[in-house]
Amino acid sequence: MNQLDATFAALADPTRRAILARLMDGEASVMELAEPFAMSQPSISKHLKVLENAGLISRGRDAQRRPCRLEAKPLAEANDWLERYRKIWEGNYQRLDVLLAAMQAKKAAGDAEQ
Amino acid sequence: MNQLDATFAALADPTRRAILARLMDGEASVMELAEPFAMSQPSISKHLKVLENAGLISRGRDAQRRPCRLEAKPLAEANDWLERYRKIWEGNYQRLDVLLAAMQAKKAAGDAEQ
Repeated sequence: MNQLDATFAALADPTRRAILARLMDGEASVMELAEPFAMSQPSISKHLKVLENAGLISRGRDAQRRPCRLEAKPLAEANDWLERYRKIWEGNYQRLDVLLAAMQAKKAAGDAEQ
Repeated sequence: MNQLDATFAALADPTRRAILARLMDGEASVMELAEPFAMSQPSISKHLKVLENAGLISRGRDAQRRPCRLEAKPLAEANDWLERYRKIWEGNYQRLDVLLAAMQAKKAAGDAEQ
């Protein structure tokens, strides 16, 4: 499995995305990460394993806490991949803007006639 | 499964990403999409089904060709989600830049002393 496969697969789960969002604020232990979820620590640990295997988080060496830390590089690569599509969706929005402007101009012309 | 789950799961496969990349250039039939891959049409059709269920592509009504078309909105939403992390990785790069500048300054000072 290549890095992009692993990154996107890891992101395809709301709990894992919420964990990453929490780690944006800084390191956290498994217990701290489990707190906001109605989930057992072993369930959270499984999600952390997926994130760690995908390289999206790393674990600290402190044997007790093993704090989790966000690793942003694979996220940046996934973002780069998606960025290539930006011109497509921005193109779509621009076409929609032109259409809306044309409709508004037509409506204004109709209003003026009345 | 919510939209982000479906989008990221659909993106977690190199063939599906290559299909989306091909569709950036415009609509294509299953046969045209299968061409560059050493894969049967049924295998490609399975991938298309995943992409269609995730809302990343739509199929035309022409019964013979049923051309595939890229739907950019879910990609834009996935991109928006990842964008939130940009400040993290850009922060990391900036810290790295500062570190490199400090190392170079130290090296320059050392060279000057010799």
